[in-house]
Amino acid sequence: MYPHAPGKHFDYVYYEQKHRPLVLDLLASYGIERYEIHQGLSGLGPGSEPMFACVGNLYFSTVDQFQQAMAAHGAELQADIPNFTDIQPQFQISETV
Amino acid sequence: MYPHAPGKHFDYVYYEQKHRPLVLDLLASYGIERYEIHQGLSGLGPGSEPMFACVGNLYFSTVDQFQQAMAAHGAELQADIPNFTDIQPQFQISETV
Repeated sequence: MYPHAPGKHFDYVYYEQKHRPLVLDLLASYGIERYEIHQGLSGLGPGSEPMFACVGNLYFSTVDQFQQAMAAHGAELQADIPNFTDIQPQFQISETV
Repeated sequence: MYPHAPGKHFDYVYYEQKHRPLVLDLLASYGIERYEIHQGLSGLGPGSEPMFACVGNLYFSTVDQFQQAMAAHGAELQADIPNFTDIQPQFQISETV
């Protein structure tokens, strides 16, 4: 989750066309199933500011798979972040229903 | 998005078994396609606190459909929130890629 803030930038084209393929390629053998990108448009009301400039949802079958994937490739993936944004991302692990 | 905070409660069973069906029923004629629930487990590290206790993603084809749905039923849906949580939700409209 990349919080929206004035003066920060986020390159959606790089994120979708370069970062996501890198993630999917590196994490394929760790069972990543899907990578869904949410580009923030607004808050609830038209023209208001969104809470997040972008949210990327990575889907795995188990938390263990995700933790193993991050142990193996997390540093390399985080090193790519400055190539598309100066926003410090926040992370969360959730169970999808 | 329901921010996690100490002392707050969130009834996941009610949210999944009562609130979601209410939303899907009321918004079916406004083109809601999917309602995905993310129950917050932790931050990035095991045992850390998640940023959000819960995130509900409602998928529509267009922002207009969503705004029309909220204009018609938003008040009724928000009135159901105290039945499952005392957390004040935050809203965002995003484009899914």
